[in-house]
Amino acid sequence: MLQEGQTYEQSFSFSQSDVDTFAQISGDKNPIHIDAEYAANTPYKRPIIHGFLGGSIISKILGMDFPGEGTVYLKQEMSFRKPMFVDTPYKAVITVEEVSRTRHIATLKTAIVNEETGKPVLTGKAQVMHAEKI
Amino acid sequence: MLQEGQTYEQSFSFSQSDVDTFAQISGDKNPIHIDAEYAANTPYKRPIIHGFLGGSIISKILGMDFPGEGTVYLKQEMSFRKPMFVDTPYKAVITVEEVSRTRHIATLKTAIVNEETGKPVLTGKAQVMHAEKI
Repeated sequence: MLQEGQTYEQSFSFSQSDVDTFAQISGDKNPIHIDAEYAANTPYKRPIIHGFLGGSIISKILGMDFPGEGTVYLKQEMSFRKPMFVDTPYKAVITVEEVSRTRHIATLKTAIVNEETGKPVLTGKAQVMHAEKI
Repeated sequence: MLQEGQTYEQSFSFSQSDVDTFAQISGDKNPIHIDAEYAANTPYKRPIIHGFLGGSIISKILGMDFPGEGTVYLKQEMSFRKPMFVDTPYKAVITVEEVSRTRHIATLKTAIVNEETGKPVLTGKAQVMHAEKI
């Protein structure tokens, strides 16, 4: 059962191949994501990960790990605070903010932190329902 | 230049192959998305698209089409109102709600509508910055 104040963390990274594949299926072939030469001439210097690919780790954790299978995803808010890069270690941090046992709904703080700099690159909140675990 | 009240629409659909590929790169291999037999025994009856894959059309439109290349994605809020299915016609509807010319920032209403039922499956808001188009 999820408890208010509980925290779940998971480390991850994405490869350029993941980004290229996401560009294909999403249709977002913006060169800032997939063209290293183009990206070298931008303030970012190197390709940046699509926000929806970076953020997908949160969805993956909620659906697979915490609370896991059976989760109904109701809402997600994301602030894209800094660009995310490939082959870079990140950590997703999920914190249980509020639990309604009668509605089986929890509000979670959802953040992604760059493990090298310690700085948050994505912050936000999710709302999920789970019949047994909330 | 984006104008308050302006609307942009784009039709799209996803295939099971897109969903399977997204499961691989995101790591979200929940059987509700990729196992038709498992899904047949749920209230949804058939596999549902990952919310982050369905929602990625909004990101794709903002980055590629409206306002397009040069967009800096600041925020996205999504409410997942109904499941999305493969091989089903959907329409993304982006409406310009508020424009700040001094900050070059716009707040957009972002919705996905099932074209067969006319019902919204995803609603929310985005905030984007664009140096020339906002």
